Amino acid sequence: MSRGPFIVFEGGEGSGKSTAAAAVAAALEAEGRRVVHTREPGGTPAGEQIRALLHEPLAPWAELFAFLAARAQLVAEVIRPALEAGATVICDRFAPSTFAYQVHARGLDPVIVRTANRAATGGLEPDLVVYLDLDPAEGLARKAGEGRAIATAHEALAFHQRVREGYLLQARDDPGRWYVIDAALPPARVAALALERVRRLEVGG
Amino acid sequence: MSRGPFIVFEGGEGSGKSTAAAAVAAALEAEGRRVVHTREPGGTPAGEQIRALLHEPLAPWAELFAFLAARAQLVAEVIRPALEAGATVICDRFAPSTFAYQVHARGLDPVIVRTANRAATGGLEPDLVVYLDLDPAEGLARKAGEGRAIATAHEALAFHQRVREGYLLQARDDPGRWYVIDAALPPARVAALALERVRRLEVGG
Repeated sequence: MSRGPFIVFEGGEGSGKSTAAAAVAAALEAEGRRVVHTREPGGTPAGEQIRALLHEPLAPWAELFAFLAARAQLVAEVIRPALEAGATVICDRFAPSTFAYQVHARGLDPVIVRTANRAATGGLEPDLVVYLDLDPAEGLARKAGEGRAIATAHEALAFHQRVREGYLLQARDDPGRWYVIDAALPPARVAALALERVRRLEVGG
Repeated sequence: MSRGPFIVFEGGEGSGKSTAAAAVAAALEAEGRRVVHTREPGGTPAGEQIRALLHEPLAPWAELFAFLAARAQLVAEVIRPALEAGATVICDRFAPSTFAYQVHARGLDPVIVRTANRAATGGLEPDLVVYLDLDPAEGLARKAGEGRAIATAHEALAFHQRVREGYLLQARDDPGRWYVIDAALPPARVAALALERVRRLEVGG
């Protein structure tokens, strides 16, 4: 049996990536595919505990290593076994988040992070990264609309602009693997575009 | 003001390192020194949460990165500020545990671990490592005597023998920084030896 496809959804705050990922997972399941939909940080008991502690501010390298601990456990316990069993794995966030947030926006050393990330993933890379691109001002406003407490200071916006830049640079450097969707489109249209691209992946596109 | 000394206590299960560290900390405090006694993993709210999740088995790299997350936070939040304020910092376990357990005993790649550990500590190294050396069979028996559930299978003993080897190799490679105490001695004698060595450190020995 061949290994299943590994699809990662990425995007900034309020970009709608979890909604789009869930819609794609549901559509594939409705067609009878075996789909494992997970998220990061989280997706395992240890990972969800790490997700909870990341709500508090941590030192930059502490944050990085906490994400990598959750990722290593998720790959070992969920993603790799599912792929090896032939399932399609859809994951909200993965290594591209680390390079956008911790490396590009926070400024951690890319060489050290790349080395450590490769250890955490055992070299596993997504077959497709669906990136939902959105102006951070719009994304943060959407989150605020959900009634969550968010930082809206100028610094916060500047940070999320660097995150977006970090994503777009990765997409530019690896266009065969990345698919960028304008997340200002209606959610149903975003999900339809993502599903269409995932189907092309299935047939080798 | 000069930076305070950074002293790490190391040892296998049941070696009595926490008891000895507490005795040394109390003796120094009784002399009027400012002492910060902490432990790893733990010592910060995030670190104590990570300590709790490490009670469950994790994938080897997940475990490594969880320890490094706790260490990075402890250094940033507790150890470095205390040292810079001139306090003596005494820590139960630090990077030497990583090299004994995760590298020597579990077999993780030493180059990757060294790189990641240096990022976690910001390059901070202990001025003195007090290693309480004990036959693992004796240490595990002591722990069992405390009524804790421990694995006593042959595999567990072999693992702890590799841990001990990992410690002794580090001590051999860095004799100026490491001080090995026979942990089969009575606890009061172990603490007295450790305190004597710490005092020599204070006067530049």
